[in-house]
Amino acid sequence: MRLALLAAAPIVSILLGFATPATAAETRIPQRALAQAEQLRERALADDTGWKVTESLTTEVGPRLAGSEADARAVAWAKAKFQELGFDRVWTEPVTFPKWVRRSESAAVVGAHAQPLQITALGGSPAGTVEAQVVRFADLAALEAAPDGSLAGKIAFVDYQMPAARDGNGYGKGSAVRSKGPSAAIRKGASGFLMRSAGTDNHRVPHTGITRYDEGLTPVPSAALSIPDADQLARLLARGPVSVRLAVDAGWDGQYTSQNVIGEITGRSRPKEIVLIGGHLDSWDLGTGAVDDAAGIGITMAAAKLIAQLPRRPARSIRVAAFANEEQGLHGGKAYAKAHAADVARHQLSAESDFGAGRIYAFNTGAPEHARAATAQIARALAPLGIEYAPDKGGPGPDIGPLAAQGATWAWLAQDGTDYFDLHHTADDTLDKIDPAALAQNVAAYAVFAYLAAEADGDFGSSAKSGDAAP
Amino acid sequence: MRLALLAAAPIVSILLGFATPATAAETRIPQRALAQAEQLRERALADDTGWKVTESLTTEVGPRLAGSEADARAVAWAKAKFQELGFDRVWTEPVTFPKWVRRSESAAVVGAHAQPLQITALGGSPAGTVEAQVVRFADLAALEAAPDGSLAGKIAFVDYQMPAARDGNGYGKGSAVRSKGPSAAIRKGASGFLMRSAGTDNHRVPHTGITRYDEGLTPVPSAALSIPDADQLARLLARGPVSVRLAVDAGWDGQYTSQNVIGEITGRSRPKEIVLIGGHLDSWDLGTGAVDDAAGIGITMAAAKLIAQLPRRPARSIRVAAFANEEQGLHGGKAYAKAHAADVARHQLSAESDFGAGRIYAFNTGAPEHARAATAQIARALAPLGIEYAPDKGGPGPDIGPLAAQGATWAWLAQDGTDYFDLHHTADDTLDKIDPAALAQNVAAYAVFAYLAAEADGDFGSSAKSGDAAP
Repeated sequence: MRLALLAAAPIVSILLGFATPATAAETRIPQRALAQAEQLRERALADDTGWKVTESLTTEVGPRLAGSEADARAVAWAKAKFQELGFDRVWTEPVTFPKWVRRSESAAVVGAHAQPLQITALGGSPAGTVEAQVVRFADLAALEAAPDGSLAGKIAFVDYQMPAARDGNGYGKGSAVRSKGPSAAIRKGASGFLMRSAGTDNHRVPHTGITRYDEGLTPVPSAALSIPDADQLARLLARGPVSVRLAVDAGWDGQYTSQNVIGEITGRSRPKEIVLIGGHLDSWDLGTGAVDDAAGIGITMAAAKLIAQLPRRPARSIRVAAFANEEQGLHGGKAYAKAHAADVARHQLSAESDFGAGRIYAFNTGAPEHARAATAQIARALAPLGIEYAPDKGGPGPDIGPLAAQGATWAWLAQDGTDYFDLHHTADDTLDKIDPAALAQNVAAYAVFAYLAAEADGDFGSSAKSGDAAP
Repeated sequence: MRLALLAAAPIVSILLGFATPATAAETRIPQRALAQAEQLRERALADDTGWKVTESLTTEVGPRLAGSEADARAVAWAKAKFQELGFDRVWTEPVTFPKWVRRSESAAVVGAHAQPLQITALGGSPAGTVEAQVVRFADLAALEAAPDGSLAGKIAFVDYQMPAARDGNGYGKGSAVRSKGPSAAIRKGASGFLMRSAGTDNHRVPHTGITRYDEGLTPVPSAALSIPDADQLARLLARGPVSVRLAVDAGWDGQYTSQNVIGEITGRSRPKEIVLIGGHLDSWDLGTGAVDDAAGIGITMAAAKLIAQLPRRPARSIRVAAFANEEQGLHGGKAYAKAHAADVARHQLSAESDFGAGRIYAFNTGAPEHARAATAQIARALAPLGIEYAPDKGGPGPDIGPLAAQGATWAWLAQDGTDYFDLHHTADDTLDKIDPAALAQNVAAYAVFAYLAAEADGDFGSSAKSGDAAP
């Protein structure tokens, strides 16, 4: 996932949630539905569908970089899996984006202390080989404060270590190094860019992730060092000048059309009204995308399947979206918002699971005043799962952001992300890192939330903003 | 380190220790020396020389595969470091061995579930590219039980998971897969060999290590999968036939002469009698060889340096050996034993630190009856460090094995190796994995042990075995 939108959550909350008129009839969830949700919760905790779906995607498809051969295999997998799980409707919606290809990457200290360094190119990096002296900066601000031209013929190295946190807040500053560092370095004259990975582990697995170069700049090869390698480079630099050879073969290669893959459990009485949940189908190429974001696919597919197995369908439809190419710019989420611009008001509540596979610890929605009581009812139904109601927190998951910006009300199921940035965007993002019991807790929470939202009498405040058709 | 000798420790103990006549005068350590050792122990716990030496070797030299360009840099580093630390004598002794070179390696599942696999070639593997169906075996015995010829045109995959243990005993069976698996596979007709790494971590860092091919067999490309990749391959194989493309470019390339680098603190009254401690200077190429075995070099160099800083030299000399090429067959230890075949009896006690940087928890020597009391005296001096006397356990460290086989008495300072095989022979063997406080405990233990052995009145039973000049 990308956290830019999460960081903006309070603003989104103000804009979308509490700004809506509070004159609507109060939304309530019927007692019968709450009783049903209790059974659903217990059944979900004992069910392994979420695990099986996650295992299937990570094993059979493996890494699935947007635009790669595996992207198409992932789309086929998702369609087949929705059908196998008994969804009522399964379809795809096209998502077109520029395709980035990683071919090879390497780096090494040259000279008296010659040794290889473990790196990975940042998504969007161009190809190129640079051998140059390295200039270290403690953080992005220090790089930005360097005199213009001072890095001519040099490699900039931003050595910022992001901290771990349950809510992942350290990633705001950590990922800013990746998104803004290369352009800042180019403006100072640098011919290459290195950063300490935006991560919290201590393994030789560098963290990739998308970067972008500001208009008018000539991109330079840009890569992240694993955290032990950043330590090593910093120690060497403390001894004197260090030159590094950085070689990246990667780049943009035309356009590619992937698909958002969507499955729906059709509502019994208000089938055109939707509770939208999902995750993203693509992953970075280094790992098998287990916590980012096969888990989100597994959690939400399983939650909907468990709802479908109830004695009767909920009033509204439950829609599960497996979004295309989240990693390189929310392409799937943006395409969904554009395709469904006319349906915004029909999306009652929308939530994406894209912060790993840790237990959910907090819940909220961006619903306006008339639906706060219903939000609190859902929170009470989630409480036995160890989830607290956090009425002043949260925001939309990344691919929900564009739809929320058009007026759809978000729901937020906050996962414990303490370990998430140990794995995120690395080769270590593999199935073994997922705790099946924690995954089942996620499935239970999504099942309860989606079911109750689909049974609520009254709405959650979604309404299309005029003149705001698509981001 | 390699554990074949550790596994054989009880036998070595019987052969070398208790078989010597018990008629010699009883060896005792003077009270004055015991008092001095207490001060030495406390000073060592507060000293960071061991850390600084370990940091210096891993940072400035980095990975140092035997025979590589970095091997020569490591030798130069060790000579300079001994001198910088104030050793009385510093010299080198040549060690010649076949040179193995790793150029590249890759593997990928091909076909419907196409995806890369993280592998590393086993040391000694030849070059070659094989694309073939994979046949899985749960362990080495299962491979050995396969019918002759049954693997023709196939890649054998031994999927044995070694367990973690404080004393590393799981490595006996784990490393046997590496040493014996390739030859067993070739005898069954296989054209390639894959194994689950002999390791205990869950990261995408495969474990390398030396293998050998039995005489008369044509070697095939042989590699270890990281543990998550072995899991993945096993899951895919559970679904049906899997083909893998395995490409290794590596091989033997002539002879190389490296050096055992030796520093000595000259004894005040019996300078020709020696307490030998040390570690090995080479490492595998994937990490920076921090726990294997820069730590051993740092611990033993620092221990001797602290002894040299005492008001007066101990009676005997303290010799620190930085052994060449332990990893590919104890070449340094064998060369030392050969060069010092005539001096065996002068080596009072000999110990190598080569099991990481975890705390020492047990102590023993292979000394005969007349030196058991002195061994117990040393153990009592070590007890405040949390070290227990284990009078029926232990054996020589790997590079001490050849000298011990010629009659030198070993000492054993057992390190906690619970996490050792998380790191051993992987890219993750880097400085950040070492706890400076645990390292200082090791330095304190080696300093106390070496000092007391060098001050003992009477010997520890070393005596050259006739007709056993060199292994």
